[in-house]
Amino acid sequence: MFHFPVQIYYEDTDHSGFVYHANYLKYFERAREHAIGKDILQRFWFEDGIGFVVYEVDMHFTAGAEFGDVLDIRSSYTWESKYRLIWHQEVWHDGGGKAAVNANVHMVCIDRNRRPIPIPHILE
Amino acid sequence: MFHFPVQIYYEDTDHSGFVYHANYLKYFERAREHAIGKDILQRFWFEDGIGFVVYEVDMHFTAGAEFGDVLDIRSSYTWESKYRLIWHQEVWHDGGGKAAVNANVHMVCIDRNRRPIPIPHILE
Amino acid sequence: MFHFPVQIYYEDTDHSGFVYHANYLKYFERAREHAIGKDILQRFWFEDGIGFVVYEVDMHFTAGAEFGDVLDIRSSYTWESKYRLIWHQEVWHDGGGKAAVNANVHMVCIDRNRRPIPIPHILE
Amino acid sequence: MFHFPVQIYYEDTDHSGFVYHANYLKYFERAREHAIGKDILQRFWFEDGIGFVVYEVDMHFTAGAEFGDVLDIRSSYTWESKYRLIWHQEVWHDGGGKAAVNANVHMVCIDRNRRPIPIPHILE
Repeated sequence: MFHFPVQIYYEDTDHSGFVYHANYLKYFERAREHAIGKDILQRFWFEDGIGFVVYEVDMHFTAGAEFGDVLDIRSSYTWESKYRLIWHQEVWHDGGGKAAVNANVHMVCIDRNRRPIPIPHILE
Repeated sequence: MFHFPVQIYYEDTDHSGFVYHANYLKYFERAREHAIGKDILQRFWFEDGIGFVVYEVDMHFTAGAEFGDVLDIRSSYTWESKYRLIWHQEVWHDGGGKAAVNANVHMVCIDRNRRPIPIPHILE
Repeated sequence: MFHFPVQIYYEDTDHSGFVYHANYLKYFERAREHAIGKDILQRFWFEDGIGFVVYEVDMHFTAGAEFGDVLDIRSSYTWESKYRLIWHQEVWHDGGGKAAVNANVHMVCIDRNRRPIPIPHILE
Repeated sequence: MFHFPVQIYYEDTDHSGFVYHANYLKYFERAREHAIGKDILQRFWFEDGIGFVVYEVDMHFTAGAEFGDVLDIRSSYTWESKYRLIWHQEVWHDGGGKAAVNANVHMVCIDRNRRPIPIPHILE
């Protein structure tokens, strides 16, 4: 289980006073990148031409988040196949009894020609 | 079926050269707002304190989009209950044989106290 | 003088109820891309490897914009040199007596190696 | 002088491979919020109805930033008057000889009715 903190700034909220729903996908991606490690991701991208692509996502919203909140993004994953990794990601408020948002994010790897390749075994 | 065009600008893409995945949720929301009509949405929000909230979403990515593409966002909906509307939304490339992205977006309505209320019959 | 309309969606606003200040730079860029024309920009980018880069910007905020507003982005330009084009861009509300936001955006052109090149004479 | 680190994710870049210019305004705002402190900002906003608004900005771009870079946002400020604070903010690469981006951001404070008020003496 990986933990990653996200603080909510003006940019994250909308006129309802709460975080704009699409932004949670950004927080989930930031958390995945920290779980994998930026040095590995940079090497893959700039040297090997390997990128990570979101193939499918489902997301459930239970509670909102407001300006100044510091959220805990919790991430774990399961291998669906050697070509597909499913991340299980949740947003938790400090002291919250259950996840405010939870999601499953299916990730694949592609080469320079955008062809799917087996996901490198970076996470095992 | 509602159609709404979205042109892809620098802001929409990421360093992979394609549209950043979270941005499709923005295009879907723009399309829903045009389907409902901004005058109705403004009146609800500013006069009645009624807002629309995304409660759940699933999204499937089949093909990417690049700088300068003009996408056709196709939207229809079904009533799940009087409290929940499910939008079926797709992204089509000009001349594409199938949707590049498809999604189901579950929408609820809330009042000033963020309590769920029946969705106004604006779409019937 | 080029005119380009921008409608304000949930995504554009922040918890103050008004458009988040950084977003105006996005509207200005959308307006410039329409003024130049996407076909030209696509050809430059995908065939010639020529991109446009913002080199300098100043921006003044006089009034905000809210959910549902449709803004008129007004753009004109002057040549500073053959390497630099200055766009004068303003945001107008319908019926407004003066610009809500005004900006000068300095644009340069770069080749594949990110070296500055003379700006193609697309705008004359 | 306040230092604040920003890591560059997919969301920050555009199809040129570099950070999208408008995003630097977000980094500057994050840095200012950390310099002031989120507890103070939350209390102002939620209890006193006081918000901070950007009134004017100028920004200069000297070098870009890429995926995986960790930037150092350096912020200081001067009082222009009791109503206006000018932040001097810069983006530095690790080991860089000069700022990649530098900006002056003029900040004012407004009350619930969006009338300007003297800036609280939180920073002295």
